[in-house]
Amino acid sequence: MTTPRIAVIGLGSMGFGMAVSLVRAGFDVAGYDVVAANAQRLADAGGYVAATPAAAAVGADAVVCVVVNAAQTEAILFGADGCAAAMAPGSVFISCATMAPDVVRALAARLEGQGLHYLDAPISGGAARAAEGKLTVLASGSAAAFERARPVLGALAATLHELGDAPGIGAGFKMVNQLLAGVHIAAACEAVAFGASLGLDLRKLYEVITGSAGNSWMFENRVPHILDADYAPRSAVNIFTKDLGIVLDMARTAPLAVPMAGSALQLFLMTAAAGMGRDDDASVARLFAMISGVQLPEGQ
Amino acid sequence: MTTPRIAVIGLGSMGFGMAVSLVRAGFDVAGYDVVAANAQRLADAGGYVAATPAAAAVGADAVVCVVVNAAQTEAILFGADGCAAAMAPGSVFISCATMAPDVVRALAARLEGQGLHYLDAPISGGAARAAEGKLTVLASGSAAAFERARPVLGALAATLHELGDAPGIGAGFKMVNQLLAGVHIAAACEAVAFGASLGLDLRKLYEVITGSAGNSWMFENRVPHILDADYAPRSAVNIFTKDLGIVLDMARTAPLAVPMAGSALQLFLMTAAAGMGRDDDASVARLFAMISGVQLPEGQ
Repeated sequence: MTTPRIAVIGLGSMGFGMAVSLVRAGFDVAGYDVVAANAQRLADAGGYVAATPAAAAVGADAVVCVVVNAAQTEAILFGADGCAAAMAPGSVFISCATMAPDVVRALAARLEGQGLHYLDAPISGGAARAAEGKLTVLASGSAAAFERARPVLGALAATLHELGDAPGIGAGFKMVNQLLAGVHIAAACEAVAFGASLGLDLRKLYEVITGSAGNSWMFENRVPHILDADYAPRSAVNIFTKDLGIVLDMARTAPLAVPMAGSALQLFLMTAAAGMGRDDDASVARLFAMISGVQLPEGQ
Repeated sequence: MTTPRIAVIGLGSMGFGMAVSLVRAGFDVAGYDVVAANAQRLADAGGYVAATPAAAAVGADAVVCVVVNAAQTEAILFGADGCAAAMAPGSVFISCATMAPDVVRALAARLEGQGLHYLDAPISGGAARAAEGKLTVLASGSAAAFERARPVLGALAATLHELGDAPGIGAGFKMVNQLLAGVHIAAACEAVAFGASLGLDLRKLYEVITGSAGNSWMFENRVPHILDADYAPRSAVNIFTKDLGIVLDMARTAPLAVPMAGSALQLFLMTAAAGMGRDDDASVARLFAMISGVQLPEGQ
């Protein structure tokens, strides 16, 4: 029996860590990234570098797609040198990008029409946990897709949520998470600015809030970036203009008013418009400081 | 040496639990509440019932005031049969209501002008922890106020944050906490409604989110009320129309735009306007359901 082969498409901070986790778990890993330097890192880490998505997918039992959005996922599947035409019959495409459920369903239906399997598998956890194989995966899809994907996900995830038998359900859970995550980042930044306007000791504020009912996972994780004036992107403002944009589009279609998500999106858009789109998402705090003149900790 | 005597003014769910904690710690406790039945419970629990705030304060080493807002606190101190005229020279007034820092500073200055001490001591933790003597207290005040208040707070709090040497600082920390708490409740309700609009299994959603980056203390605490369709008030909608109202007033004075808090306040106001002001604050979810027709779990 040969070693299972896995293709990983998209070798950014998340995809690279996931590819390394798969190498460590004993898979043959073929990687592709549009940025050649990203792909080359995988060769140094024990994987193979493919020249196109199709070349990575040839002979793979599973293709793990870790790109940014729906347009990129569609291009990876069905664009020039795309995976769909190269995948072996019965193999599975594991899609990790954050997308609207409707888009997921359309991509899955098209792929399944070709005799291939599609697992809707958005991820959560950040680059460090990707590299440790300890992501959280919010998965849905057919029994056949799960059967083929489980060994792969076992090497990638500390927690695998199996959320339903059709693609799109995992995406729905992910979008609810993104609504909350975006609102909580915006609220954390607003609260720190409000505290600064009152002249409060911001490190003490962090200590008090993280032990109080006002705490959130995002407050606890992002406010240290503000306290250290470190806006190097662990996750960028532009991720949330994208993801909250999807939430607002979905809500408008429902229709459902989502005023909290709406206000958060406007704050992320203002932050991006002010030139900080590629910076860490805690930069929303700098937007508040810029507008109001409140003093936040300053960098080196 | 006689047993120290403590007055507790306001014997609602928080104040009663705190009074009981003080009885348990060995203090002589005299209680007052405008609602006679609330006061009577204290007699059954080992305390004394006073007919007026002044009567409770006579001979007390400390007066703990656990009313709802600034107007009630001012009336308890300086209204008819108020505490200020009855307190022993050098005793301390421990004020637990959530108020704007400016109001706290004015009340404290007036009391300190009479040779009495004022500890700004808003609390967090809910009725259960009040009864266990395990509250979190966000305190600020003079060294003399702290010296007199510490033995009392030792019986009330699991965590005493000593945040500064002047009244108003504790209030500032509390208002930042309330900004976040209110935003997170509104966001939790919006997210559950959004999930319901997508047809997601809401109990599974709770499991997924509480293990993900979208989690907050409030999501974890309040969403079970929605899942159980139990809107009996643990903390009411009207608390947040009040507290977010204070936040918005403070921000307007700064001036600082706080759009997240502003959107949350409007949701709480809509929920109150729809007749749910005295219900549990998770009732914001019912507002979303009422407006949009999404299905939430129904009660018995």
